Amino acid sequence: MIPQSIIKAVQICALRGVRQVVLSPGSRCAPLTLAFVRHPNLVTHTFSDERSAAFIAIGMAQQLRHPVVLVCTSGSAAYNYAPAIAEAYFQHIPLLVFTADRPPEWIDQLDGQTIRQKNIYGSHVKASYELPLDQPHPDVQWHATRIISEAINISRTFPCGPVHINVPVREPFYPESNEIINFNVPVKVIENEQGELTLTNPQTEKLKKEWERFDKKLIICGQQPYHPKLTHIISSLSESQSIPVIADVISNQHSVGQAIQHSDILLAHKNEETLKGLQPDLLITFGLSVISKNLKLFLRKYQPKAHWHIQPAGYVADSFQSLTRIVRASPELVLKTFYGFSKENEKTYYNQWQREERKAKELIRNLFSRTLKISNEDLNNSGEFEAVKLVMECLPNQVNLHLANSMPVRYANLVGIQQKSEDLEIFANRGTSGIDGSTSTSVGASLISDKLTVLITGDMAFFYDRNAFWHNYKLPNLRVVLLNNHGGGIFRMINGPSQQPELEEYFETVQQLHAENTARDFQVSYTACDLRKAGELEKLKLLLPVFLERKENDTHGKILEIISDGKLNQQIFNQYKTLIKESYGA
Amino acid sequence: MIPQSIIKAVQICALRGVRQVVLSPGSRCAPLTLAFVRHPNLVTHTFSDERSAAFIAIGMAQQLRHPVVLVCTSGSAAYNYAPAIAEAYFQHIPLLVFTADRPPEWIDQLDGQTIRQKNIYGSHVKASYELPLDQPHPDVQWHATRIISEAINISRTFPCGPVHINVPVREPFYPESNEIINFNVPVKVIENEQGELTLTNPQTEKLKKEWERFDKKLIICGQQPYHPKLTHIISSLSESQSIPVIADVISNQHSVGQAIQHSDILLAHKNEETLKGLQPDLLITFGLSVISKNLKLFLRKYQPKAHWHIQPAGYVADSFQSLTRIVRASPELVLKTFYGFSKENEKTYYNQWQREERKAKELIRNLFSRTLKISNEDLNNSGEFEAVKLVMECLPNQVNLHLANSMPVRYANLVGIQQKSEDLEIFANRGTSGIDGSTSTSVGASLISDKLTVLITGDMAFFYDRNAFWHNYKLPNLRVVLLNNHGGGIFRMINGPSQQPELEEYFETVQQLHAENTARDFQVSYTACDLRKAGELEKLKLLLPVFLERKENDTHGKILEIISDGKLNQQIFNQYKTLIKESYGA
Repeated sequence: MIPQSIIKAVQICALRGVRQVVLSPGSRCAPLTLAFVRHPNLVTHTFSDERSAAFIAIGMAQQLRHPVVLVCTSGSAAYNYAPAIAEAYFQHIPLLVFTADRPPEWIDQLDGQTIRQKNIYGSHVKASYELPLDQPHPDVQWHATRIISEAINISRTFPCGPVHINVPVREPFYPESNEIINFNVPVKVIENEQGELTLTNPQTEKLKKEWERFDKKLIICGQQPYHPKLTHIISSLSESQSIPVIADVISNQHSVGQAIQHSDILLAHKNEETLKGLQPDLLITFGLSVISKNLKLFLRKYQPKAHWHIQPAGYVADSFQSLTRIVRASPELVLKTFYGFSKENEKTYYNQWQREERKAKELIRNLFSRTLKISNEDLNNSGEFEAVKLVMECLPNQVNLHLANSMPVRYANLVGIQQKSEDLEIFANRGTSGIDGSTSTSVGASLISDKLTVLITGDMAFFYDRNAFWHNYKLPNLRVVLLNNHGGGIFRMINGPSQQPELEEYFETVQQLHAENTARDFQVSYTACDLRKAGELEKLKLLLPVFLERKENDTHGKILEIISDGKLNQQIFNQYKTLIKESYGA
Repeated sequence: MIPQSIIKAVQICALRGVRQVVLSPGSRCAPLTLAFVRHPNLVTHTFSDERSAAFIAIGMAQQLRHPVVLVCTSGSAAYNYAPAIAEAYFQHIPLLVFTADRPPEWIDQLDGQTIRQKNIYGSHVKASYELPLDQPHPDVQWHATRIISEAINISRTFPCGPVHINVPVREPFYPESNEIINFNVPVKVIENEQGELTLTNPQTEKLKKEWERFDKKLIICGQQPYHPKLTHIISSLSESQSIPVIADVISNQHSVGQAIQHSDILLAHKNEETLKGLQPDLLITFGLSVISKNLKLFLRKYQPKAHWHIQPAGYVADSFQSLTRIVRASPELVLKTFYGFSKENEKTYYNQWQREERKAKELIRNLFSRTLKISNEDLNNSGEFEAVKLVMECLPNQVNLHLANSMPVRYANLVGIQQKSEDLEIFANRGTSGIDGSTSTSVGASLISDKLTVLITGDMAFFYDRNAFWHNYKLPNLRVVLLNNHGGGIFRMINGPSQQPELEEYFETVQQLHAENTARDFQVSYTACDLRKAGELEKLKLLLPVFLERKENDTHGKILEIISDGKLNQQIFNQYKTLIKESYGA
C-alpha cells in the first residue's frame, strides 16, 4: 500500500500545476516513484546519477519558471543533489526536492543507505520539511497535505528556490500487483494568491523627486530570465532620458536598444578622467549577478551618490559596496514610475558611455582581424576565443543558449550578442558559478523545450558532468559546442597561477580526453575541428551554420568539439590584454 | 604572500604524520594548494571531480588508517565532497577537509563560487572549524594553529572521522614568483596521547561472572579493518569455548577458524525448531554494519537474553533491537577478559551452527553445479553470481578487495572467502552503502598500496563514478571486475520492484553502456567476457588467474567486463531462492 500522504502529495503537486518530475532509481523511494509515474497528468523522467538529475531539473525549471519535482532514495543519493540545490538557491530556481528516508527510529542503526537527512541542505533551501510517517490521528493527514502546499507556495514565491521534503517510508515499499492508486480522493490545497507590491503615493513622489535630482543615472541589469515587458520598459526609459543600460550577457537584456554589453572591456580604462566621466550619481540595479569584474571594481572605486536596488523580497547583496536604498517592488513597477520625465541625463555623460561601448566593440573586432606576432612566427589567431565569437554570430533566432563556467561565459560576455532577437534566451549557472552541472542543465532544457538548445562549454566542465548523457532520452534539439584545450584554460588567463611552476599539474590540470568516445557511448553525433591545424577555422565557419540548424529528422544531439592549444589561447588572451593596454593605458 | 596560518596548518599536518594530500584545482584554494604541494614531506595528488576526489581520499585513508587531507576551492566544489564525507563519517574514516572560502563579508554578495560553507556538512563531520582570516592580534595565530591540532586529534580519535576546516582567503591568492615558503618556523603542536580504556577489577569480575552464566554465546563481527591481534583473540576464544563467530565478508575475520560466513543463507531457515536451536543467550558484537539481512531478522525475532556491544566511544547502534549493555573499551581488551574459562558453550548449540554453516556452503556449491531448467531449455547457469564466485576463488594472497554496492558485496557475502590469508583485506563503502564512490575508493587504495587492488563492481556503480579515472596517474595494480547486466540488477533480485510494470524504466533503469570506450579514454587495458554466449564461462575461468596477476611490467590498470543477461541473473537468483526454500522450508 502506498501511503495516503504520498498519494496526496503527488495529487497536490499535479493540482498546483507541476508537470515535470525527475526521478532517480531506488527502493525506499518506490512509493514516491510509483505515485509520480502513475499520475496521469505528470511527465516523469529518470536519471541514475543524482548529481546530474538535480541539474537537469534546474534546466527544466528554468524553462518552465515553475517548480520541478526531484525524487531520490535515502542515503548519499540526497547529498549528490547538494551542488545543484545550492545553484538553484542562489539562482532562484524553484525545485521540490523529495528525499526518501528511513523512519526516524532506524537512523544511526547501521542500516544501509541511511544518513542524517533532516535539514541536510542547511541554508541552501528556502524551507525544509519532513512528511509525517504514521497516520493514526486525523490531524496528521492535514499536516502532511499542508506541508506540500506550503512547500509549493514557498518555492514559487519570489525569490523562488528549492524546498526540501524529507519522506520517511516504512516497508513494504511496493504496492500489491492489483493495487490501483486512486488520485481522485479529495485533497485540501492551500493556494497562494500573491499580491503585487506597490508603492504608496508619498513613496512614489519621494522617489520621483530624488530621481529628478540626478543627472547621471546608470542602470545595471543583473542575471535574470528574459521578461519582454521589463526589457521594453528599460528600453523606453533609456531612450527617453538618455540613461546608459549595462547588460551583461546573462542579463537577457540584449534587445534593449543601445545596451552597453562591453562594460568589462571599456571599464578596463586606466584614465582617471574618462572613468570619472562615466561615474554615475544614481545607480539603479535589479536581478542577480553580473559577470564583469571591471564593472564591480569601477563602481566600488567610483561610487555613485545613491544606489537603489529594486527587488521585491529576499536578501539583497551590496555587490558594488554602494547600496543606499532597497526598493521592495518589481523592477517593472518601480521603473515605470520614472516614465514621463522630460529631463534627460547629462548628454556628455551618456555619449561617453556610448562612445566607449562602440570603441570596445571595435577593439574586439580588431582582435580577430589582427595577425598575432608570436615568437617571430606569423600565426593566425584562431583559438577558442574566436570560436566563441563565431558561434555567437551564427546563433539562429530561436535559441536557448547555455553558457558553462568558467571561460565560455566570460568569452561570450566579451563578445556580446549582436542579435536583437527576443527568442534568444541565455542561461548560465551563475548562482554558484560551478563547472559541475552545466551540461545537465542544458540537457534538462533540451528535454522540455522545442527550441534549439545550444551549450558552449569547456573540456573541464564537459567531462566533469559527462553523466548528463547517461540516460535513455534522445536530445534531437541539443547542440554542444565543446572548447577543448585539454585543461582548465582559465588558469592560464588569470595572472596568478600562470606564473607558478605548479600551473600545469595543479591548476590547469592538463587532461587528454576528447569527446569522441563519450559521443560514441551515448550515440550523439560528433564532429571535431582542430584549430591547431591550418585551415580549420575556415572549416569551422562553414560547419557552424549547419551544426546549429534544427532539422526535422534530427534523432539525437550533436557535439562539435573545437580543439585548441591552451598556450596559444593564452597568447591570444594576452594579445587581448595588450590591446586593452594600448587602448586604455597601462 | 601565502598567509602564515595556512603555512603553519600545512606544517602541523606534516609534523603530525599526514603524508597524502588530495587536491582539486581552483583559484581561491591556491594558497592551500601551493603550501601543500611545496612541503617537502607531503605527497600531493590532484583530481578535477571533487566527488571522486573525496572518495579517493577515503581509499587512501583506509589503507593508511591515518588522516588524509582534502583541499578544494570555494563554492559548490565543497558540496561535491558531501557524499564521501557522509561515507567517511559512518565508516569511521579520518579525513581533514580544507575548503577555501571567501572572507565572511563577501558571502551572499553575488560573487562567483560563493555559497554558505560554514557547517556545510551538518552532522556528517566530527567537528567543523573556520580558520581565522586576518591576523592582527597574536591570539589569532594561536587560534589558527590550535584549530589544526584539534582537527587532527579529533579526526584520529576513535571513532575516527572527517573534520571540516573552512578557510576564508583574501586576494592575492598567489605568492610572488621569488617567494619561498619557509616551513621551518616554529609551530606549537598539540599532541594527543590517547589513553587506553581499561575495565576496573570489579567491572571485569562482574562481566566474567555474567559471561559464565551463559551457555549459548554468539559473536558477531561487524565491518572493520583487519586487526590481526583481534582475529587471533576471537579465534582462541571461539575454539576454546566453542563460540560460533559470525563473520560477514566485510568483517575481515575470514581467517578466524570455523567462522560462520554464510549466516545470510543458513538463517533463511523457516524451521522454528532449528532457529530456536541457534538462538544465543549472550550476543557479543563489535565493529560496524553487517550485510546479512537474515541475520538481523533472526536476532530481532529470536532475541538473546543479553547483548553486549563493545565499542570504546561514539554512538552505538542497536541493530538487532536486543542491546542490553555497551562496554566502553577495545574489543581486544574486553574479549581477552574471557580467556581461560574451562566451561564451553553448549555443544549441541555450537555444533548446530557449524552444521548449518557446512550445509549453507554446500548449497552455494550445488547452485553452481546444477543445470538451470528455464522455459524448457537447459541453460547453464553462467551469470554474474557464478562470476563473482570464480573471482573470489582466484584472488591471490596479497590483495585489497573492494566490493561495490549493491549486488557485488551481496554476492561476495553469499559466496564467502575460502582463503585464510591475512593479507587479503576487504573494503566496501557500507557507511552509507551508496553506489557513488566505489571505483574512486579503490583508485585511492591502488594509488598508495603496493598490493593488488581488485574491485568487483556493477555497471550502475561503475558508470556513476567513471570520473574515478579522470586524472593523470597510472594504476598498474588496479583490477576492475565489472559485472555489466545493463542496469540496476538488484531491482530484479528483490521481490517488490520485479512485480511492477515500471521495473525496467524506473527501477532497473536499463542502460546500454559498455566500459570499452571508458577504457579507451583512460588507456586502461580492457577485456570482455560475454556470459550470454556459449563457452564464455570457460574462457573466464582461464582468463581470471592471468587477469588477477600482478606483473612487473604492468603500466596501467585493467578492466575485465563480464557481460551477463539481467533476466538470466534474475532466474539464477530465483533458482538460489528455490534452493533455499527446498532446503529450509517455505
